[in-house]
Amino acid sequence: MSDPFFQPVSGFDLPRFAGIPTFMRLPHVDPGDPRLSQVQIGLIGVPWDSGTTNRPGPRHGPRQMRDMSTMIRAQNGATGVRPFERANCADLGDVAPNPVDIEDSMDRITRFYSKVREAGLLPLTAGGDHLSTLPILRALAKPEPLGLILFDSHTDLYKDYFDGMQYTHGTPFRRAIEEGLLDPRRMVQIGIRGTTYDSEDRDFAESVGVRVIPIEEFHARGPEDVMTEAKEIVGTAPTYVSYDIDFIDPAFAPGTGTPEVGGPNAFQALQVARMLDGVTIAGADLVEVSPPFDASGGTAYLGVSVMFEILCNMAMQPGPAPA
Amino acid sequence: MSDPFFQPVSGFDLPRFAGIPTFMRLPHVDPGDPRLSQVQIGLIGVPWDSGTTNRPGPRHGPRQMRDMSTMIRAQNGATGVRPFERANCADLGDVAPNPVDIEDSMDRITRFYSKVREAGLLPLTAGGDHLSTLPILRALAKPEPLGLILFDSHTDLYKDYFDGMQYTHGTPFRRAIEEGLLDPRRMVQIGIRGTTYDSEDRDFAESVGVRVIPIEEFHARGPEDVMTEAKEIVGTAPTYVSYDIDFIDPAFAPGTGTPEVGGPNAFQALQVARMLDGVTIAGADLVEVSPPFDASGGTAYLGVSVMFEILCNMAMQPGPAPA
Amino acid sequence: MSDPFFQPVSGFDLPRFAGIPTFMRLPHVDPGDPRLSQVQIGLIGVPWDSGTTNRPGPRHGPRQMRDMSTMIRAQNGATGVRPFERANCADLGDVAPNPVDIEDSMDRITRFYSKVREAGLLPLTAGGDHLSTLPILRALAKPEPLGLILFDSHTDLYKDYFDGMQYTHGTPFRRAIEEGLLDPRRMVQIGIRGTTYDSEDRDFAESVGVRVIPIEEFHARGPEDVMTEAKEIVGTAPTYVSYDIDFIDPAFAPGTGTPEVGGPNAFQALQVARMLDGVTIAGADLVEVSPPFDASGGTAYLGVSVMFEILCNMAMQPGPAPA
Amino acid sequence: MSDPFFQPVSGFDLPRFAGIPTFMRLPHVDPGDPRLSQVQIGLIGVPWDSGTTNRPGPRHGPRQMRDMSTMIRAQNGATGVRPFERANCADLGDVAPNPVDIEDSMDRITRFYSKVREAGLLPLTAGGDHLSTLPILRALAKPEPLGLILFDSHTDLYKDYFDGMQYTHGTPFRRAIEEGLLDPRRMVQIGIRGTTYDSEDRDFAESVGVRVIPIEEFHARGPEDVMTEAKEIVGTAPTYVSYDIDFIDPAFAPGTGTPEVGGPNAFQALQVARMLDGVTIAGADLVEVSPPFDASGGTAYLGVSVMFEILCNMAMQPGPAPA
Amino acid sequence: MSDPFFQPVSGFDLPRFAGIPTFMRLPHVDPGDPRLSQVQIGLIGVPWDSGTTNRPGPRHGPRQMRDMSTMIRAQNGATGVRPFERANCADLGDVAPNPVDIEDSMDRITRFYSKVREAGLLPLTAGGDHLSTLPILRALAKPEPLGLILFDSHTDLYKDYFDGMQYTHGTPFRRAIEEGLLDPRRMVQIGIRGTTYDSEDRDFAESVGVRVIPIEEFHARGPEDVMTEAKEIVGTAPTYVSYDIDFIDPAFAPGTGTPEVGGPNAFQALQVARMLDGVTIAGADLVEVSPPFDASGGTAYLGVSVMFEILCNMAMQPGPAPA
Amino acid sequence: MSDPFFQPVSGFDLPRFAGIPTFMRLPHVDPGDPRLSQVQIGLIGVPWDSGTTNRPGPRHGPRQMRDMSTMIRAQNGATGVRPFERANCADLGDVAPNPVDIEDSMDRITRFYSKVREAGLLPLTAGGDHLSTLPILRALAKPEPLGLILFDSHTDLYKDYFDGMQYTHGTPFRRAIEEGLLDPRRMVQIGIRGTTYDSEDRDFAESVGVRVIPIEEFHARGPEDVMTEAKEIVGTAPTYVSYDIDFIDPAFAPGTGTPEVGGPNAFQALQVARMLDGVTIAGADLVEVSPPFDASGGTAYLGVSVMFEILCNMAMQPGPAPA
Repeated sequence: MSDPFFQPVSGFDLPRFAGIPTFMRLPHVDPGDPRLSQVQIGLIGVPWDSGTTNRPGPRHGPRQMRDMSTMIRAQNGATGVRPFERANCADLGDVAPNPVDIEDSMDRITRFYSKVREAGLLPLTAGGDHLSTLPILRALAKPEPLGLILFDSHTDLYKDYFDGMQYTHGTPFRRAIEEGLLDPRRMVQIGIRGTTYDSEDRDFAESVGVRVIPIEEFHARGPEDVMTEAKEIVGTAPTYVSYDIDFIDPAFAPGTGTPEVGGPNAFQALQVARMLDGVTIAGADLVEVSPPFDASGGTAYLGVSVMFEILCNMAMQPGPAPA
Repeated sequence: MSDPFFQPVSGFDLPRFAGIPTFMRLPHVDPGDPRLSQVQIGLIGVPWDSGTTNRPGPRHGPRQMRDMSTMIRAQNGATGVRPFERANCADLGDVAPNPVDIEDSMDRITRFYSKVREAGLLPLTAGGDHLSTLPILRALAKPEPLGLILFDSHTDLYKDYFDGMQYTHGTPFRRAIEEGLLDPRRMVQIGIRGTTYDSEDRDFAESVGVRVIPIEEFHARGPEDVMTEAKEIVGTAPTYVSYDIDFIDPAFAPGTGTPEVGGPNAFQALQVARMLDGVTIAGADLVEVSPPFDASGGTAYLGVSVMFEILCNMAMQPGPAPA
Repeated sequence: MSDPFFQPVSGFDLPRFAGIPTFMRLPHVDPGDPRLSQVQIGLIGVPWDSGTTNRPGPRHGPRQMRDMSTMIRAQNGATGVRPFERANCADLGDVAPNPVDIEDSMDRITRFYSKVREAGLLPLTAGGDHLSTLPILRALAKPEPLGLILFDSHTDLYKDYFDGMQYTHGTPFRRAIEEGLLDPRRMVQIGIRGTTYDSEDRDFAESVGVRVIPIEEFHARGPEDVMTEAKEIVGTAPTYVSYDIDFIDPAFAPGTGTPEVGGPNAFQALQVARMLDGVTIAGADLVEVSPPFDASGGTAYLGVSVMFEILCNMAMQPGPAPA
Repeated sequence: MSDPFFQPVSGFDLPRFAGIPTFMRLPHVDPGDPRLSQVQIGLIGVPWDSGTTNRPGPRHGPRQMRDMSTMIRAQNGATGVRPFERANCADLGDVAPNPVDIEDSMDRITRFYSKVREAGLLPLTAGGDHLSTLPILRALAKPEPLGLILFDSHTDLYKDYFDGMQYTHGTPFRRAIEEGLLDPRRMVQIGIRGTTYDSEDRDFAESVGVRVIPIEEFHARGPEDVMTEAKEIVGTAPTYVSYDIDFIDPAFAPGTGTPEVGGPNAFQALQVARMLDGVTIAGADLVEVSPPFDASGGTAYLGVSVMFEILCNMAMQPGPAPA
Repeated sequence: MSDPFFQPVSGFDLPRFAGIPTFMRLPHVDPGDPRLSQVQIGLIGVPWDSGTTNRPGPRHGPRQMRDMSTMIRAQNGATGVRPFERANCADLGDVAPNPVDIEDSMDRITRFYSKVREAGLLPLTAGGDHLSTLPILRALAKPEPLGLILFDSHTDLYKDYFDGMQYTHGTPFRRAIEEGLLDPRRMVQIGIRGTTYDSEDRDFAESVGVRVIPIEEFHARGPEDVMTEAKEIVGTAPTYVSYDIDFIDPAFAPGTGTPEVGGPNAFQALQVARMLDGVTIAGADLVEVSPPFDASGGTAYLGVSVMFEILCNMAMQPGPAPA
Repeated sequence: MSDPFFQPVSGFDLPRFAGIPTFMRLPHVDPGDPRLSQVQIGLIGVPWDSGTTNRPGPRHGPRQMRDMSTMIRAQNGATGVRPFERANCADLGDVAPNPVDIEDSMDRITRFYSKVREAGLLPLTAGGDHLSTLPILRALAKPEPLGLILFDSHTDLYKDYFDGMQYTHGTPFRRAIEEGLLDPRRMVQIGIRGTTYDSEDRDFAESVGVRVIPIEEFHARGPEDVMTEAKEIVGTAPTYVSYDIDFIDPAFAPGTGTPEVGGPNAFQALQVARMLDGVTIAGADLVEVSPPFDASGGTAYLGVSVMFEILCNMAMQPGPAPA
């Protein structure tokens, strides 16, 4: 079992509504804390939404996800995994963004994750809008490009917005491929749907070898079949998992800025995360939770429930398991 | 490609949250405008709910649907159709109802749609409660009765309410049959469910040949099989499509006055609209969106997403395609 | 047909939004009223949530369920059953709880239901948190232990909370088994899911023979197969039906204190209740509706829709049918 | 003391959130009940909003006001009056409106109140939109026209709407003067404000002698001075009190259809009602509470708090006090 | 009277909930429209919030303000002014911002307002966060610096944020003074309150001669006395009026990103705007309305009510009155 | 200046929406932490509402107040006080309540505060319902009874509820007097209003010498005059300050369980707290914030704004100022 210091507070001892809310009631370990070297999986908030072209709000995501995450208990009811006993997990706090300077914010994020990477631990991020993933990848995609499993309703592969803007939440994966952070032939995007400006993103995907699984195919084949293919695409080399909450149907996850109707339900949303077992996860994120559009917190709760499933898989990996 | 004047404003030029909201960011063409003759498909609001016997609110539907429709982009992600390039589309504004006189309001609606019909364009309506459909049909059902595909949780075939009231949102199709506006043998009603007063409406349907597909049958057979039958029933003669938002499960569409639990999900809601291809659509409506019961606008957004699917089919019809 | 006195008010006579709201617009028959002896099924509110360990609110459940139940009409649209013509039904009002004394409240509930049982009528309860079920069972489980069909995302079989607390909404069925109120071999729990503290509850279930059907199994087998097994487990001996609203996915039923994502949709929620036909229902409840977490009332409306399905089955039982 | 039957249920016995909600937890006495003759003040709901020209919803007002009124206790904290011991009060239920026929609804309301008047009791009404007051006055204004104290942000004295419509919630007092139900020289309107179509209503008021006290004057003079004048205007002859919730600033009473910013605060809202002592109240109403625009119920709670102040004054009148 | 083309649509003709929502139901005149030269006062939206350092959302302000502004009628109830008959008013639409580039957005705004200024009309703006005012002033403050009356809870005079950031919604007036757009000796800031980082802003104000009237002084002296002083400070030279909605207490205006409790009520909020008579208004704005924090629209409605008061004063100025 | 460790995080460094939310962004110092001895003022959460007889929710108060408190900056804008430089302040976390056992919870609270008192620091509490104050007083009222300044709409002096229940949120001050924790002649209760069960509480107050200032008197005399009297009553001996959020009018503070309309506005709410200067504060609390009744957090924000005013006075006291 992992270090008792890293065990979350139980609801049997302190009711779930009580206490200062950290992710999943884990201890807060500041990146400057000597304990950092003992952490194996770090939960990190990126409260930032400057890449948002539509309805803002994900800057408030980490806080609401911390709040709702106090309803997560120690054991996965479906698989029996107890991740906090498998790996030392901690809440590393939030990256401090600069809300009025996109490039400075990206630099801050990359610096934070570089430090995390140097400390040898795996990051699990609560965003933030989807542009957050780009500066994270800049820190993690070393020495080789990573594979990517993306759950999303959008490809986020657009070339630019508003007369040449390179950095928006609709472009991170285009940039990441251009920068050599991701290997397009080891990339799969699941759940793509909704109206589109045009086919520029999809044409690009095809040209570089990114596999796009639209929602119609997802619903027709079912989660298991799709995830089997996804895992074949990324193989056993290190892979980043990026989960945009708008992958899920907005009836289940209304709190997001660019919803697209017709997505998976909550059970399927959990299933695909659970089926990441066997993937070599180099890092993961859950992005685009926008509390102003869901005051009830239901979206954030679904988001942290998905994060817990991803965390269970990360904790079961050979790498991060404690000695 | 259609006239550039009729292209919607792109989110790449003007962000989606900006601008005076017209339906799908189309140009506003007043019925008195000389441009009317160039319009092929007209989007019209009927802000009226005087036929409502339960919880009011659909009078606010068109405005909220215009607002949310600014998130609709130019291309259908599933089919690739770009309707605004196939047909000249415009927002014709709202019919001016008389909120305190039902019959005067119905006359106003019929006059508006008669003008639209004379101009040779196809109307796609955002209601309004379901009684709105009756005065629309009075303008359109010429010279022959129309077929009808109805998506709804209620038959709206009741004889009367409150001691003989003929005109409520529970009676429009009874009246339309009586008035010879609809051919009952070319009518199909899909998704019927919920508790009922009695069987009077269903007995009437059976007696005149209206096909009713209850939700249990819908869920058992699936959208494709049901829609195949529906298209056989209406055939290739002109057909009106009426889509009551309460067809959809209230978790997906809470903003409506008479919800019935247990309906289709959002993906199925889009599917059935997409499967209208091949139907000769003489006009269509999406009714009963009630913003006071869904301040978030999620219901309206789903409503306009369905309208976009219908619009794509209308734009692909031989008739309205530009010369 | 049952006594006209017991017919609910029709929406054709008094609109659904009008009138003092009783359950399903039934007459209010106080337990002290001489009419009590003519009632066959009594609808009762238990506005109490002192057993809640997480987010409170079910004390407000009965009132909101009464309000939303005025949208229930006289006939089951799926089965054609008209329960109010099959059995005399009435609203017996609320048990008066003591919000600051758990054991006194339990005694008050048991006394109320003992009186109901003595009057020979079947109770259908709107809770209240799940601890409510325990004092109800103390009144009803005579002379033999009852069977149980539980729809829930939690087993509610925990031994204790907070250093030995016996009575919380997470323990009622553990207590009921210990007290001999339920026969564990005739118990089935459907829909169990979510993160858990540990496996103590599930180990106990296994040790005494309670059948637990987790949500993964439910989704894989489907409602029909699961309900066939459930009915075999309880057989034809008297059985209590307990329906925790958190059985249903929180997108459909957000108004509850301990939601677990990934549950059944609303159609399935109705299906399993409808499939209780043939079970000898000794009493039933619908618990954990928490209005503060769903101001819109959608959760309560789904709750009363489920109650109506259960009521139809209760009314069709040989026992309660009128002479 | 009044008949114990007419005492409201105490929160010390049954918590405020429990029980079937009647107005102020009073007994429900149907107009057909023999107990009617013992009632001295009858609380009545008029769930009707067909006169609404803007945002609908007051049809839901009586139910939400009943719900929130369960937080009203037996004694006026400011004056010490215990109205339910001074006069037999009861909830007479709702008038059954016809939501799709304005004139029929007005007839139904007049018939209901005529019966009430014949029974010799004083009505205190929860609306409903402001048109409700007209058919009530038709029943009560006999044999002489009544005086009127109106609290409102609008004069409701317009001649007509929408090309000649006589009956809207903006015209009731014009009609009432024309029909001889109100004596314009004994009419005072307090709190008038907001943008206006034109001055037609104010010119009419001046021409017939209605005293209008705009909000600027109200704020400058203060409640006491204004109420002293108001009581001089109506004198000691029978007077009707009509209180539109939009008299109060929308920060305090957001749940209404036609709010006007800049009104009195809640304390002043209670003060003016409390200062009605000495007026011979022939009947009173509190109208335009629209729950869809205030799901929290705060507006309804303020509304019933005002009603309680009016009720205290009605109960202290020489007339209705018990023998 | 002004040109009939510029009269707003009356609620007597088209109900307020109907129609495509322009500001105050005025005609939409695009800056490229030849009609522009006839406009005397232009209402403009600036849907932009990139300067926001706390909770975002004002980018959605113009749309919600347009929506709620359809409840504004033609005549000022307090003063009798009919502004649309005094001056040709029109909705000029929104400036197209670039949501991911602050400086580009500021350039776009300045270009738009330069065009407006060249056309000789007075702009009345609906923001947008408070940084919007800076690029507007860059277009308007010619040839001389302007005076300023600011209603706000913050001075917005800070030097910089986040290690030297010059452009945030907390710095516009510091920048404007530095750039010579405002004359600090003709500046007054009313309503300042709340916790502060330090006194750097206030020290700067004092050093350059800006008059700051904190809320304590405002409440002690009252609106009239304060406004008399304010008008003396700015004198008769051209003055810009900037009204931050957070000037008003958050109970009246919750929909804003950086609320400070303890502000004026709605009546006072209108009073101070009404008391701008006599000021030579060179332009005005109402900023920081953030719809995601007030889904009901009450804040936006109060905002447009204030805008209408300012508009009345602008329309009564000698300059813009029609020939 | 106080220890830099105890300085709150500035919004200039980490935006207000970022970071794990502690009270006012202070460091978290667990009671077991050696740093405790350096703390002079401890902010403590009591997430408990088992004494609530009406609408529950204050158990969620501390968390939402922590969240909203991140908008509090370092300096009091009205007085210039910088409390965190005057005294070492820290967030001591929450007391762990037992949600299903009132007496056990009271013991836990008393033990926690006894430890705090032994450490020599002053507690400032965020409740929790008002019963929380009783166990706090049991720890603090030594060796002499304390004085009390209570801001509240209720006296909370009732003898018992529900047939003899001693411990509810309506009885704490009755118990505290009986237990000798408070000196009734040094007690003042300000803002009392609303309907009441009877006069038993007020009669008791009079009999033991508690001064009750009803809201009518408060509004008539104004905050300054009332506070002068209040300070005379408590004198210079140690005094506890208890601030029930329902003291404030529900338009400003809707998020509470037992609102009473007609209270002070937000400015007055701050004023009275600010005027506590000179009182020897032995401890203070802000109770009855109920997030489920105000999802927006406005009530919590007003609550922490009041807490900040109290904190400024506590920090300025001779006692806690740093050596």
